[in-house]
Amino acid sequence: MESAGAAKYSFRDDYSDGAHPGILAALKKTNQSQQSGYGDDEYCDEARKIIRKLIGSDDASIYFTPGGTGANLLAIASHLRPHEAIIAAESGHIVGKECGCVEAIGHKILVEPADAGKLTPERIQSAVDKSSLFAYQTQAKMVYIANATELGTVYTRTELEAVAAICKKLNLLLLMDGARLGAAMASHKNDMTFADFFRLTDVFWIGGTKNGALLGEAIVIKDPIFGADFPYHMKQRGMLLAKGRILGIQFSTLLRNNLLLRLAKHANDAAAQISASLVQMGYKLWNETDSNQVFVIFPPTLVRKLEELFDFLVWENLDDGSQVVRLVTSWATMNSEVNRLCAFVVEWTARSRLVNFN
Amino acid sequence: MESAGAAKYSFRDDYSDGAHPGILAALKKTNQSQQSGYGDDEYCDEARKIIRKLIGSDDASIYFTPGGTGANLLAIASHLRPHEAIIAAESGHIVGKECGCVEAIGHKILVEPADAGKLTPERIQSAVDKSSLFAYQTQAKMVYIANATELGTVYTRTELEAVAAICKKLNLLLLMDGARLGAAMASHKNDMTFADFFRLTDVFWIGGTKNGALLGEAIVIKDPIFGADFPYHMKQRGMLLAKGRILGIQFSTLLRNNLLLRLAKHANDAAAQISASLVQMGYKLWNETDSNQVFVIFPPTLVRKLEELFDFLVWENLDDGSQVVRLVTSWATMNSEVNRLCAFVVEWTARSRLVNFN
Amino acid sequence: MESAGAAKYSFRDDYSDGAHPGILAALKKTNQSQQSGYGDDEYCDEARKIIRKLIGSDDASIYFTPGGTGANLLAIASHLRPHEAIIAAESGHIVGKECGCVEAIGHKILVEPADAGKLTPERIQSAVDKSSLFAYQTQAKMVYIANATELGTVYTRTELEAVAAICKKLNLLLLMDGARLGAAMASHKNDMTFADFFRLTDVFWIGGTKNGALLGEAIVIKDPIFGADFPYHMKQRGMLLAKGRILGIQFSTLLRNNLLLRLAKHANDAAAQISASLVQMGYKLWNETDSNQVFVIFPPTLVRKLEELFDFLVWENLDDGSQVVRLVTSWATMNSEVNRLCAFVVEWTARSRLVNFN
Amino acid sequence: MESAGAAKYSFRDDYSDGAHPGILAALKKTNQSQQSGYGDDEYCDEARKIIRKLIGSDDASIYFTPGGTGANLLAIASHLRPHEAIIAAESGHIVGKECGCVEAIGHKILVEPADAGKLTPERIQSAVDKSSLFAYQTQAKMVYIANATELGTVYTRTELEAVAAICKKLNLLLLMDGARLGAAMASHKNDMTFADFFRLTDVFWIGGTKNGALLGEAIVIKDPIFGADFPYHMKQRGMLLAKGRILGIQFSTLLRNNLLLRLAKHANDAAAQISASLVQMGYKLWNETDSNQVFVIFPPTLVRKLEELFDFLVWENLDDGSQVVRLVTSWATMNSEVNRLCAFVVEWTARSRLVNFN
Repeated sequence: MESAGAAKYSFRDDYSDGAHPGILAALKKTNQSQQSGYGDDEYCDEARKIIRKLIGSDDASIYFTPGGTGANLLAIASHLRPHEAIIAAESGHIVGKECGCVEAIGHKILVEPADAGKLTPERIQSAVDKSSLFAYQTQAKMVYIANATELGTVYTRTELEAVAAICKKLNLLLLMDGARLGAAMASHKNDMTFADFFRLTDVFWIGGTKNGALLGEAIVIKDPIFGADFPYHMKQRGMLLAKGRILGIQFSTLLRNNLLLRLAKHANDAAAQISASLVQMGYKLWNETDSNQVFVIFPPTLVRKLEELFDFLVWENLDDGSQVVRLVTSWATMNSEVNRLCAFVVEWTARSRLVNFN
Repeated sequence: MESAGAAKYSFRDDYSDGAHPGILAALKKTNQSQQSGYGDDEYCDEARKIIRKLIGSDDASIYFTPGGTGANLLAIASHLRPHEAIIAAESGHIVGKECGCVEAIGHKILVEPADAGKLTPERIQSAVDKSSLFAYQTQAKMVYIANATELGTVYTRTELEAVAAICKKLNLLLLMDGARLGAAMASHKNDMTFADFFRLTDVFWIGGTKNGALLGEAIVIKDPIFGADFPYHMKQRGMLLAKGRILGIQFSTLLRNNLLLRLAKHANDAAAQISASLVQMGYKLWNETDSNQVFVIFPPTLVRKLEELFDFLVWENLDDGSQVVRLVTSWATMNSEVNRLCAFVVEWTARSRLVNFN
Repeated sequence: MESAGAAKYSFRDDYSDGAHPGILAALKKTNQSQQSGYGDDEYCDEARKIIRKLIGSDDASIYFTPGGTGANLLAIASHLRPHEAIIAAESGHIVGKECGCVEAIGHKILVEPADAGKLTPERIQSAVDKSSLFAYQTQAKMVYIANATELGTVYTRTELEAVAAICKKLNLLLLMDGARLGAAMASHKNDMTFADFFRLTDVFWIGGTKNGALLGEAIVIKDPIFGADFPYHMKQRGMLLAKGRILGIQFSTLLRNNLLLRLAKHANDAAAQISASLVQMGYKLWNETDSNQVFVIFPPTLVRKLEELFDFLVWENLDDGSQVVRLVTSWATMNSEVNRLCAFVVEWTARSRLVNFN
Repeated sequence: MESAGAAKYSFRDDYSDGAHPGILAALKKTNQSQQSGYGDDEYCDEARKIIRKLIGSDDASIYFTPGGTGANLLAIASHLRPHEAIIAAESGHIVGKECGCVEAIGHKILVEPADAGKLTPERIQSAVDKSSLFAYQTQAKMVYIANATELGTVYTRTELEAVAAICKKLNLLLLMDGARLGAAMASHKNDMTFADFFRLTDVFWIGGTKNGALLGEAIVIKDPIFGADFPYHMKQRGMLLAKGRILGIQFSTLLRNNLLLRLAKHANDAAAQISASLVQMGYKLWNETDSNQVFVIFPPTLVRKLEELFDFLVWENLDDGSQVVRLVTSWATMNSEVNRLCAFVVEWTARSRLVNFN
C-alpha cells in the first residue's frame, strides 16, 4: 500500500487505510445476488457458521454491527437494567473515547485505575465494594475489558481466567471489547483461542474495522435470552444495516483461511520492529509492546522533528517535559515506512547525542 | 443483475441487491491511500463540495451516517431538548418501523393521520393544538416528513412550501427523511431541486442505501450551531465510522454525473410499468405510483400464487378480505423480471376471469 | 372546607384542596420521632402491613412515591427492557398528560382507541398484531390501564379479568394506574377488592394525592425480582424522598378505618348529584358518571356564564359548536357549592328555554 | 425533640426528624383554601417573591421540587444538550450517592479529585483539558459544586468567585447544590449572601429537606430561556407535584423571619460543640467542621462502643485500621444528646488511656 503522495505517512491509528483487497474482491463477487435485509442473509449466516466453529458452540447468538462504539453500547444496552452499572479501567475506550455513549443509554461507568490498561480482580472487587458503602448506589452488574487493551497490552489466560472468576463470584457479566482482538491473538503474549474468549466472557466482539475490513464488528452473545432480542436493540439504536450482507461478507473473508490473524501478525511484527529499535536506541517504553501499538517516551524536540515526516498521536505530556508518543501499525503498514521511521530516529538520536556530548 | 439461482426474484425492498458497480470501482480505486478517520478525509470533503454546489450554500453542515434510522435519530437528538416532541404522520418510518428509536433517545412522537403518506399544514396545526390543551404537555418543536413518503407518494413544491410555511409560523423545525429522495426527484410529480429541499427544511438527508450504495446517508444541516456539534452526537450514538471515507467515496460517486438520479429513474420506470400494467388489468392501486413503490390491492388467491414466484410484502389485510401488496423496484431491478411479473398477473387474471365467467 | 374568599369555587380537579385533617394530625403526632430515611421507617412499614393485609399477600413489594407521573414512570422503567413498549388507550394519562415521561425513559407507547377510557382485549390484541407486521418493530410487553379511567369510568370485574386474561395469553405485564383507585372502589359500578387488583395486575398503585393526602402514591409490585430493585429506580429518578416517613404516615392514616373509601365516597356522591341534576335538565353526558368526574355537553353560552362563578376545565370542543365540560369533585367538595352549581344551571336553563320559547 | 423511646439517638443524617413545628402550623393554617395545581398557586408565588428579594433579582425563575436528587437532575437535564458533560468532584453527591441519576438522563460526569470536598479552578481546567485530548470526546458544559460540600466544608467568597471566573472563561455553566445551603450560610466560614450565590452561579438551589422542611428544595435559574421551560422538565421527570402548594408553604415559612438560618445555626453550633470536644480529647478531624457535619478519626473499639448508644455512619476505613466516623447534626438535634455523646467519649477516652498507661 502506497503512501498518499506528498502526505506524511501515518502511524496515527489502524483505520487510516482502506480494506484488504480480499474484502473488496469478496464484495464484488457477491454483489450480483439478492439477499434478505438486516443481516438475515446467507453471507451473515456463513460468517456465523465459521464463528460458531471457532468458538466451539452452536448456541451463541452472533450479530454484525458497523462499528466498535456501537458494539459496546449495544452489548451494554441489551444486558443491563437501568440501575445497573459497568466497571471499567480508566484507560477503557468506553470511559474517555466514545463521547459518553454508555451514559447516553443511561448507565454509569464505575471507573477504576488500570494496571497497564488491564483490570484485575482486585480492582473489580474494589469497584463493587465502593458501590455498597451507601444506600441505593448504582449496582455493578457488568465488567468491561478490552483485549488487546487500549494501551496495546494483552491479557494472558491466567489473567483473563482470574477476571472471569471474580465476575462469576460477584454475579457480574463480562464484556470483552475486541476492536483489536486480532492483534491480541497474534501477540506473543497470547495463549488463548476464540473458544477461550467465548467460555470466559458473556459477550465479546471481534473487530473488523481495525483489522482490514471497510467496517464491521462481530458480536458473540452467550445468553440466548439476550441474544434473541439483540437485533431489536440494533434496530432501535440505528445500527441494523439494511444491507447487512456487507458485514457478513467481510467476516467470512476475514475468518476463512486465518486471514484475520495473518493481517494482525503483520501489524504486530511492524510494531515489534519499531519497539525493539527504539529500545535499542535507549528510549523508554511507556507500556510493553504486546501487539500493534508502541507507546514510547520521547523528548519534545524529537517529537517535533518526527511530526514533520510522520503522522501520529501525542498521547500524554509527562511532568518532566517529555512526551508519550503512540505509534500504531496496521495490516497495511508498509515495511519501507517502518524502516524509514526507525532510520530517522536512529540518525536524530545519534546527532543529538553528539551535540550533547560536545 | 441476475437473480440468485432458484431463489424467488425479490420485489420486497430496494436494498436486496449489492451496490452499483461504479461504487465498488471507486472503493477499489481509492483503497490505496491513507486518510484521516471519522469523516475528516478528502473523499468526504469532496462529497461535501458536490452537495454544497447542489444545494447552493457554502454554510451547510454535511455529514455521512451508516443508515437511515441513525440519520433520523441523530437529526432529532441534535436539534431537540428533552421536553420537545416531533410531529409525524402515522405512516411515518420513525413511527412504526424503527423500533422506537425516537423514544429511545427520549422524545415523544405526536402522531397524526396521513394523507397518502403526507403531512399537511392542517395536520401539523392540529398536532400543535392538541399539545396545548392541558398544562405542561410535551411541546412540539419539529416536524418529520419523508420524500418520497413511505407509501411511495411524492411532495410537490406547493405542498412542501405549505408545510414549510406552517413550520415557520409555529416555530417548528422541519426534518425531511430522504431515504428515497432520489426516487422522489426522479418522479414525474417532482418539481423541486436539492436547493429547494435545503431552502425549505432545517435538516434533510439524501439516501444512499436504497439507491445503489453499500450503505450510507448524507445529512444536510442548516443551522451552523447544530451542525458544529453533530459529529459529537454521531460519536455518542455509535454512528461515526472510523473509516468514514467509505461513505464519502460512495456519495462522490452517486452525486457526480447525476448517477443518483439515473439509478432512481430506472427504479421509477420499472414501478411505473408494473403499476400501469396492473391498472390496465383492472386492479385498484392503494396509493398512486409516484416513485418506486407500487401499492396494489389483490385478491388473496393471486397473492398466494404470486408468492410462489416472487418475494414481496403483504402490507395490510383489508376488511373485505383483499390484501394490499407492496412491490418495490430498485436501481438494480431487472427488466426481464418486471416483464415476467406482469405477464404472470395478466395470465392469472385472464384465467381467473374465464373461470368466473363460466 | 371554605372557598377562598372572592375566588371562584373550583371543580377543576381533585387536588385543589389541602389534605384531610386526619393526615395533618398524624403528621403532627409522629413529628417528634427519629426515623430512618428513604422509606425504611416504621410508618412506611406500618402502611405496608395494612396494604399486605388488604391485598391478601405477604410477598408483595410496596413503595411510596411522591406523585402519579412518577409512579407510572417507575413502574415502567423497572419492568421493561429498552426495546419493549407499553400499550395504552389514547385517553391514557401517560399518553397525553405526562409530558412524554414514558418516552423520556426510552419507551414507546403503542396507542389504541379507547372505549369510554377503557382498553379492551380486542384493542390489546390489535396493538400486538400491529407490532408484528414488519421486521424488528418495538415489542409490546406491558399494558397500561387506569381505574377509575381518565374519563371517570370504572372497570368491572368481568372487564378487568378479560384484560388480565389477554395479557397473560400474550405474555404482557399489566400496570394499573390508581390515581383515582379510591373513586373507582367507591363507585356503584365497582365489584372488586384490593385483593382482586393485586391478583389481576403485575403492578398497581393506590393514589393518595387525589384522595385527601398532601402527596403520595403507594405502588404494589407482584414480582419479587422487580420489587427488590425498585428503590434503586426510585433513587435514580429522584423520587426516593429522604423523609419517606411522610408518605408512610399518610397511607397508614388513609387505609386505616376505611378513610380512603369514605373520602372517595363523598366525592362520588357529589358527582352523582351533579350528574343526575344535569341529566334531569336534559343535558347529555359525554361519559357515564361512574366516579368523581362528570363529563357533560354544554352550549358555549352556558359555559361562559358558568366560568364566571366556578373554575373547571373545558375538555373538548365538539364539531357542532357545543363543548365538553369536566366537573371534578373531591373528598373536600362542599355540598353547598354543589347545590349552588346545580341551582345556577337549573335557573340558567329555564331562562334560556323561556327565551327560546318566546 | 425527644428520642424515640429505647431507640439509639441518631447522628446519622439531617433528615431523621420530622418538620419544624412552624412548617406543620403553616400547612394547617393554609389547608382550607383551594389553589391551582402544579406550583401555580399563591403560596409558591409568595415564596418566589421572598426569594427574589433575597437574591436581588426580579428576573430569576424559581421552582420547587420534592427532593435534592431531583433538583440536580432537573437542573442538568434542562441546561445540557446530549453530548455535553458535567464536571464534579469525586466526593460530589451526584457522583456516588444518587444511583446514577445523571447518567440515567444521558450525561457523563467528568470526575476530578476533590480538595476537602471542593472543586478548584485548577481541577476544572484539568477536566476540560482532558476532554480535548482526543477527537469527539464529550464536551464539558457545566460544573457541579455543593455548598456546604458533602464533607461539611464551606466555600468562601474568594473560592466561589474563582470557580465562577474559570466557568465564565471556559464557557461552562455553574450549578450549586444547596441541600445544605442553610448550614453553609450559618457557617463561621461564610461571607456570602443569597444575592452572591445568584450572581455567581447559573442555577442553584436552597435545600428544605435537610433544614426543617417535610420535603422540598427551591431551584433558582438565571437564564430565562431555561427557566421558562423548567416546569415541562419537572412534569416529564415526574417531579411536578399536583399539590405544589405544600412546597411553597414550607419555603415561605422557612425564608420568613430568617427561620432557615436560625435552624441551620442550631445544627452548626451542635456540630461545633462536638468537634471542639473531640479535638480537645486529642482526636483528629478528617475534615474541618465548617458546618453541621463532623468527620473524625476514631479507633474501631471506640466506634463499636459508640454504636451501642448512638446511630451514625462509618464513612471510610483507613489503611491504619482506624475509621472515619461522620456525625451529623440538624435543626432538631437535642443539646442533651450532644452532651451525652461528648461525655461518653470523654469517659471512654480517659478509661482507655488509663488502661494503656497501666
